[in-house]
Amino acid sequence: MVDKFNIHTDLAVENKERFQGDDTEISGVKVYEKYDERYGVKLTKVEIVSPKGAKIMGKPMGKYVTIEAIEFDYKDYDSDRKKQLGKVLARELFYMLPVRKKEEIKELSVLVVGLGNKDVTPDALGPYVIANLDVTRHIFMLKNNHGKSKGISAMIPGVMAQSGMESAEMVEGIAKQIKPDVVICVDALAAGSTKRLSSTIQLADTGINPGAGIGNHRKGIDKENLGVPVIAIGIPTVIHAATIVSDTMDEIIKVLSELPDMKGNGGFEVLKSFNDTEKHKLVRELLEPRVADMFVTPKDIDESIRFMSETVAYGINLVFSLS
Amino acid sequence: MVDKFNIHTDLAVENKERFQGDDTEISGVKVYEKYDERYGVKLTKVEIVSPKGAKIMGKPMGKYVTIEAIEFDYKDYDSDRKKQLGKVLARELFYMLPVRKKEEIKELSVLVVGLGNKDVTPDALGPYVIANLDVTRHIFMLKNNHGKSKGISAMIPGVMAQSGMESAEMVEGIAKQIKPDVVICVDALAAGSTKRLSSTIQLADTGINPGAGIGNHRKGIDKENLGVPVIAIGIPTVIHAATIVSDTMDEIIKVLSELPDMKGNGGFEVLKSFNDTEKHKLVRELLEPRVADMFVTPKDIDESIRFMSETVAYGINLVFSLS
Amino acid sequence: MVDKFNIHTDLAVENKERFQGDDTEISGVKVYEKYDERYGVKLTKVEIVSPKGAKIMGKPMGKYVTIEAIEFDYKDYDSDRKKQLGKVLARELFYMLPVRKKEEIKELSVLVVGLGNKDVTPDALGPYVIANLDVTRHIFMLKNNHGKSKGISAMIPGVMAQSGMESAEMVEGIAKQIKPDVVICVDALAAGSTKRLSSTIQLADTGINPGAGIGNHRKGIDKENLGVPVIAIGIPTVIHAATIVSDTMDEIIKVLSELPDMKGNGGFEVLKSFNDTEKHKLVRELLEPRVADMFVTPKDIDESIRFMSETVAYGINLVFSLS
Amino acid sequence: MVDKFNIHTDLAVENKERFQGDDTEISGVKVYEKYDERYGVKLTKVEIVSPKGAKIMGKPMGKYVTIEAIEFDYKDYDSDRKKQLGKVLARELFYMLPVRKKEEIKELSVLVVGLGNKDVTPDALGPYVIANLDVTRHIFMLKNNHGKSKGISAMIPGVMAQSGMESAEMVEGIAKQIKPDVVICVDALAAGSTKRLSSTIQLADTGINPGAGIGNHRKGIDKENLGVPVIAIGIPTVIHAATIVSDTMDEIIKVLSELPDMKGNGGFEVLKSFNDTEKHKLVRELLEPRVADMFVTPKDIDESIRFMSETVAYGINLVFSLS
Repeated sequence: MVDKFNIHTDLAVENKERFQGDDTEISGVKVYEKYDERYGVKLTKVEIVSPKGAKIMGKPMGKYVTIEAIEFDYKDYDSDRKKQLGKVLARELFYMLPVRKKEEIKELSVLVVGLGNKDVTPDALGPYVIANLDVTRHIFMLKNNHGKSKGISAMIPGVMAQSGMESAEMVEGIAKQIKPDVVICVDALAAGSTKRLSSTIQLADTGINPGAGIGNHRKGIDKENLGVPVIAIGIPTVIHAATIVSDTMDEIIKVLSELPDMKGNGGFEVLKSFNDTEKHKLVRELLEPRVADMFVTPKDIDESIRFMSETVAYGINLVFSLS
Repeated sequence: MVDKFNIHTDLAVENKERFQGDDTEISGVKVYEKYDERYGVKLTKVEIVSPKGAKIMGKPMGKYVTIEAIEFDYKDYDSDRKKQLGKVLARELFYMLPVRKKEEIKELSVLVVGLGNKDVTPDALGPYVIANLDVTRHIFMLKNNHGKSKGISAMIPGVMAQSGMESAEMVEGIAKQIKPDVVICVDALAAGSTKRLSSTIQLADTGINPGAGIGNHRKGIDKENLGVPVIAIGIPTVIHAATIVSDTMDEIIKVLSELPDMKGNGGFEVLKSFNDTEKHKLVRELLEPRVADMFVTPKDIDESIRFMSETVAYGINLVFSLS
Repeated sequence: MVDKFNIHTDLAVENKERFQGDDTEISGVKVYEKYDERYGVKLTKVEIVSPKGAKIMGKPMGKYVTIEAIEFDYKDYDSDRKKQLGKVLARELFYMLPVRKKEEIKELSVLVVGLGNKDVTPDALGPYVIANLDVTRHIFMLKNNHGKSKGISAMIPGVMAQSGMESAEMVEGIAKQIKPDVVICVDALAAGSTKRLSSTIQLADTGINPGAGIGNHRKGIDKENLGVPVIAIGIPTVIHAATIVSDTMDEIIKVLSELPDMKGNGGFEVLKSFNDTEKHKLVRELLEPRVADMFVTPKDIDESIRFMSETVAYGINLVFSLS
Repeated sequence: MVDKFNIHTDLAVENKERFQGDDTEISGVKVYEKYDERYGVKLTKVEIVSPKGAKIMGKPMGKYVTIEAIEFDYKDYDSDRKKQLGKVLARELFYMLPVRKKEEIKELSVLVVGLGNKDVTPDALGPYVIANLDVTRHIFMLKNNHGKSKGISAMIPGVMAQSGMESAEMVEGIAKQIKPDVVICVDALAAGSTKRLSSTIQLADTGINPGAGIGNHRKGIDKENLGVPVIAIGIPTVIHAATIVSDTMDEIIKVLSELPDMKGNGGFEVLKSFNDTEKHKLVRELLEPRVADMFVTPKDIDESIRFMSETVAYGINLVFSLS
């Protein structure tokens, strides 16, 4: 069963789709879907409540919320759409914060981390969000005569080839120094399907775990390491090259199945009987070795990264300007 | 026959490979190969001498020189390697210039055009080369009291979404104004195989033609439009997503062929009998539509773009500092 | 009299202030001032109507409109303020366009030129405005099957050390190629007083003339060269180092004048009797020579450039989205 | 006496010059000068050995080495000059490292911090140096199976308005996490004279202290806070606006002194008798208030920052590639 998830995706909603039909239930995994007409988005909440569920889903226990702008052609970016998506994000982010009431938000010290590589466009979501963030901690510190940390701080760890350090090391060092109440990590993700690129936002209360995204963030950035809740906000901007090939192979097998002479053909039946892991393994072996380190991304990724980073920053800014 | 080239590649050397075995000759196409031990590169010169050759190759008549750093793992960039590759590039570029003697080089007025989108990493080769170029025209103009244009000038047209203009329009306007003796266009290319990414340089005396590279440079930047020779320098940095899938399908068919029950199976024989165009068409139909606009690129594209742009700038600077 | 203006300023409103008291009139120069309560800005319209006026003002004949956000502490940037200033800019820009009715705007082909050096923060206003502009010409060209040029196009010429060309050459080449109906040039300016830095916008229907701003735009970008109206939009972001010193010297002389023993002191009276040109010349001689090539700018120039470039882009976008 | 140093400079060599004639000695301050013919640089070593010396010099006790490229017109940057300056820097940096022998260098874990604001050109030296650094720590960590930290790591803290944190907080957090053996901080400095801009490098074993440079690095980045030696490498890129005005005032007073009627004039004698502090205070009062937050910088600062950051990176890379 686990093999269902060998196609790499960072989206819990895709793990779920690949696994279940619409009516099946996965043990240890609660799913809740809702269409929000007001903002034209589909919300899917996946909660992994047991270790067994975590194993099946290949993701740590916790809450995953996906905001899909399903009726939104990502080419139709505009400033109204940015605000709508930003508002939904703000609402969902609020529910994940370790506060009960809006008034408590303004007492929080929040460290926002922009993960990824600013020099590789599809991996630059995190750094770009930071560039659009309303950073306020220093203002409170000056007013407060350097008392308790409060307000928004932000960091861009960069990638190992630039810093010589793992992002997780850097975040841990900074977090121990300034002692935020909560950490929010923003990162570009890999999707399993082109339709979710640049139009889906995932929030998770699990932090960031080894190998997530296209970067190399090996050590976890999570509550275990940092001692405070870590909320991850991610948007898929790439698909692994192997995923695209694998998906196409599925389609080819479907086409071949319909050719009359194929029916009852032993060799073909073998191929058809391959499960996802086996097919994925075959594809990986057939692919030129360097393809494994490659990703697929749209030509206009600069425009979608710009739009989505402004959207995420708008949402985060909105939450923390509330009170 | 033409279908051999439906797999998109901007490299003449790959068109040739896909078409011929090692010993075949294509009518109207002259090929000359040489291994340059001193610099550890393979040089392939493809000359298309007749309209028939141009049709077969799917490329305009002219000379194409490919410098392949075959023994070079693109992860081992260093400053010596940059100089070696740069020297070979300088030598080949010199032979394409409209001069006979080294002394004449310093009398040339040369416009270097950095095509592509600086905001999408794999498409940023051209803009990055310009950033490393020794621009000199303004110095000669000041000395010369604005007499005949001389020395190196440079422009970065950007992409249509940023300028509202085609690159070709912008280059044509500037070229008519400053009347260079020769135009050199630098652009990122699409390869047909991962092995040539970031380690191959192509020079061509044909200029840039519609749809080349991953950008949208529809109108030609060539001698016909500009009235002066146009030399194109390109390095493959991406592969079209459809190419990767198509290549993998070929491998799958090979594997299936060896399964015993497949022999003599009518449906499979049909599939196997598909030529490249038919297979490519099938792949395109099976691919999710958005994939057609996607490209595949390595995760560390920022490092290879940086290295290769410094190499190209080094080579161009070297030619024009000669005398 | 001309010496009054030796203190370098690119703002017509400062030329006027240095020259006249509040009630004087300069021959050939019409001045109209208005406080716009709705938007909290002071508008000054200076019209130079005769060659004599042009000589006195040291600026070409034409209309100059200054929008001063006088009650605006430039540290209080916010998105509302940006919209207010942008609306005033849009209104004044509309009056300078070669159209009578709003409906005609959408038929215009407009080339917006971002002058200056993107790599020197206070000189980067022009390039930053272009980055925020709604460029549309290519969309109309596709719809129109490449008929008459229409919509917004944009270019960033860069500086001579990067391009080897004068900005004016590049703009002329592009303008001849795409034949816009009007050209809008955006540039950073030098002010004569710190109070106008980053909070004043000047529009002029005279284009850009040699030596304006801190860049080296020697050849004119004006109707004479381009054959179409050229509107200049500028914001002061620097003060020449010599201006700051000169102004302080004036203050020192004032202080010395009040020391009792100075009265009737011949040497001092000589100094006091110096006119602005003489004082400025003295300052220039006393300054270390390299200071002449230096400018004064605030430490937080990155924030004000960002805010003001978004404001100007908002204003320009607003005009051309009307209809 | 202390007032001698009120003209702000970050260079110990300028503090010394303002204070002493060539032959004077300051108590608690040792000075050693040498002209290095091979590389065409003047070396000045200032050692502050007592608290009294520190008070007089307005700088903490420690060693300051200044490398002045005195015969070097900063417009004649070239790659040879970069290597020469880089070699001198490497040699002086080596002497400040907490090692005795070259072999020990390769065992060091070194954190290089690029202070300053990448978005304000004259303050971008630190970030630009990091971009050119050979970062190696991650490679050793992978080989070493995450044993003792070794090799070069690098961070760019950014400025408070971007991060909400003081640079010192961020460096402290990271240093506690990765435990380097030595920290090297690179920062842009303010000079007291234009002649030292972009052509002087200062090394100090004192770390970075509050208010140094043009940024706002209030908390110290020094051995006291970090527990390991902190070496500061700085290059002056700006002059405070008040310094330029003050220097010019000195020149004006000199000129006035030579006017015959001034001799014996009481008011003027008062002015002349002002010491530097008093003059500086007067200038500050006369300056428009906003000027106090302004700096003076050359128009071509982008080119000198680029050259100097490559030079510093070359020097640092050279030291740590030795063994």
